[in-house]
Amino acid sequence: MSDLVARARGGEPRAVARLVSYVENAPVGGGERLREVMAALAPHGGHAHIVGLTGAPGVGKSTTTSALVRELRSAGRTVAVLAVDPSSPFSGGALLGDRIRMTDHATDPGVFIRSMASRGHLGGLAWSAPQALRVLDAAGFDVVLVETVGVGQSEVEIAGLADTTVVLVAPGMGDGIQAAKAGILEIGDLYVVNKADRDGATKVQRDLRGMLRLADRPAESWAPPVLAAVAQSGKGMAEVVAALDEHRDWLRSSGTLEARRTRRARAEVEAIAVETLRARWTTVGEMDDLDALAAEVVKGERDPYAAADTLLAEKSVPDAE
Amino acid sequence: MSDLVARARGGEPRAVARLVSYVENAPVGGGERLREVMAALAPHGGHAHIVGLTGAPGVGKSTTTSALVRELRSAGRTVAVLAVDPSSPFSGGALLGDRIRMTDHATDPGVFIRSMASRGHLGGLAWSAPQALRVLDAAGFDVVLVETVGVGQSEVEIAGLADTTVVLVAPGMGDGIQAAKAGILEIGDLYVVNKADRDGATKVQRDLRGMLRLADRPAESWAPPVLAAVAQSGKGMAEVVAALDEHRDWLRSSGTLEARRTRRARAEVEAIAVETLRARWTTVGEMDDLDALAAEVVKGERDPYAAADTLLAEKSVPDAE
Repeated sequence: MSDLVARARGGEPRAVARLVSYVENAPVGGGERLREVMAALAPHGGHAHIVGLTGAPGVGKSTTTSALVRELRSAGRTVAVLAVDPSSPFSGGALLGDRIRMTDHATDPGVFIRSMASRGHLGGLAWSAPQALRVLDAAGFDVVLVETVGVGQSEVEIAGLADTTVVLVAPGMGDGIQAAKAGILEIGDLYVVNKADRDGATKVQRDLRGMLRLADRPAESWAPPVLAAVAQSGKGMAEVVAALDEHRDWLRSSGTLEARRTRRARAEVEAIAVETLRARWTTVGEMDDLDALAAEVVKGERDPYAAADTLLAEKSVPDAE
Repeated sequence: MSDLVARARGGEPRAVARLVSYVENAPVGGGERLREVMAALAPHGGHAHIVGLTGAPGVGKSTTTSALVRELRSAGRTVAVLAVDPSSPFSGGALLGDRIRMTDHATDPGVFIRSMASRGHLGGLAWSAPQALRVLDAAGFDVVLVETVGVGQSEVEIAGLADTTVVLVAPGMGDGIQAAKAGILEIGDLYVVNKADRDGATKVQRDLRGMLRLADRPAESWAPPVLAAVAQSGKGMAEVVAALDEHRDWLRSSGTLEARRTRRARAEVEAIAVETLRARWTTVGEMDDLDALAAEVVKGERDPYAAADTLLAEKSVPDAE
């Protein structure tokens, strides 16, 4: 295992992929192997700039990811891409599409691309994505791009994973109310109007700036820029990369980077603790303590709070001490 | 408190409303008062037939709820309605609309109507709705209808709350693929094609029957009927009530009722245990243990699993023993 971790840290793509697979396939509660991996990686993190990329379907997320990778590579930086598939079982097609488009970079050893399903369980993204990011960070990539495939809550959720969140919009994607409903006005550190060669791009840019001034955003000294780009041709991507660097510098100098990472680690530790307990409460197969307690609740012999107290008293601490 | 519970059990609407408010306003982890309420109610549950009503916006959920209430009342049964508002902050309008329509039953003491917001936090519905249902069940209503206001995951989630799940569809609401995507083919115990006086209703009914035969459903001896109704005029509602009764009889005789209720109680106890721990881990205001652990994870001094273990070892058991 320590050999595998060493090879991953040396940038060997197969070793990195193997470690991400450990995260993806880990049993509820993590399991011994993943625990070992995480313990071995812990001292080697914190270098990568983690950039989240989000936006409604059709704004050109994959194209922008690809263009960003190209721009970062031309500046000599190494990049990992994590495409997270939200819980919908219907997005397999889009994911495949991503894979094909990203073959542009398939032969470049400075680029690592990986998609990961969140397996449809509640909190799937919250559970597995941060740990996959730890692997990519410890592997030494300069920038890690996290992209969600699909829609919905994940758009907001991804903001919780990244140092810097880039929100993509495009002309003709609906009015400002849609943006407000999607919750994107609160989460972006950087807005990019993609497909800026189309009609209405300037208006979208202007509207977005206006709405951002009115939005209920955290009181920070950072005012999110609204850039224009054409990811398809690479136009404007140098400016996007420059804005990313500027945001990273601001994160560091303002202390926001540490605050965000602490908040993230907090959520991660809490999620692991809860899942560890859930695994302890549940014995696969035969009837377990939780079933016995539930049966008493159904019969009215115990109320659910008393049952929860019993569960916590009996099962929160491992048997061996 | 025991007086309040006694009055609620006697069917006094204000007392029932007060107890539901305790559930709705309880702090994370439940709080002392809610614990007392639940302990007092525990021996008095299990009588009500809990019926979940779900379907896409526009199928006529509120109208059907109202028509069902009327039909059940004319059969001499008492009814409580719990309208659960999912986490979206945008559904305030729809909720108000429901309330106005339900004023039909405002003067009937055999009908209790209540809406409840799930307060936007993850697992909000999972946390508060089962406890509100315990209140309504213990208050002695013959039937408790749970209706979600809105869309999305809650459609499937509601199936986890009810003894019997009714899925509403309507002509012109999109093709079968939509139904499959929404996940409704797996969850219904009873399907009602509402607005059956419109074009295409017979085709919807036939298509739905065909899809149900192919759907990946639990291997049960119950084959969900697909009925037609016009909730607006009350047409077909007697058949819906008859089907509900038939399903309840089947639930009892097959042992499925106890199995479903045990599964529900299990999820409820687990959710309470997790929330109780979360509350213990978090001290409001100043920096708590979880923050300190998160900071160590950010610095690479501890991996997230080791931090979770520490959290569990220190904080899972109350200080006083």
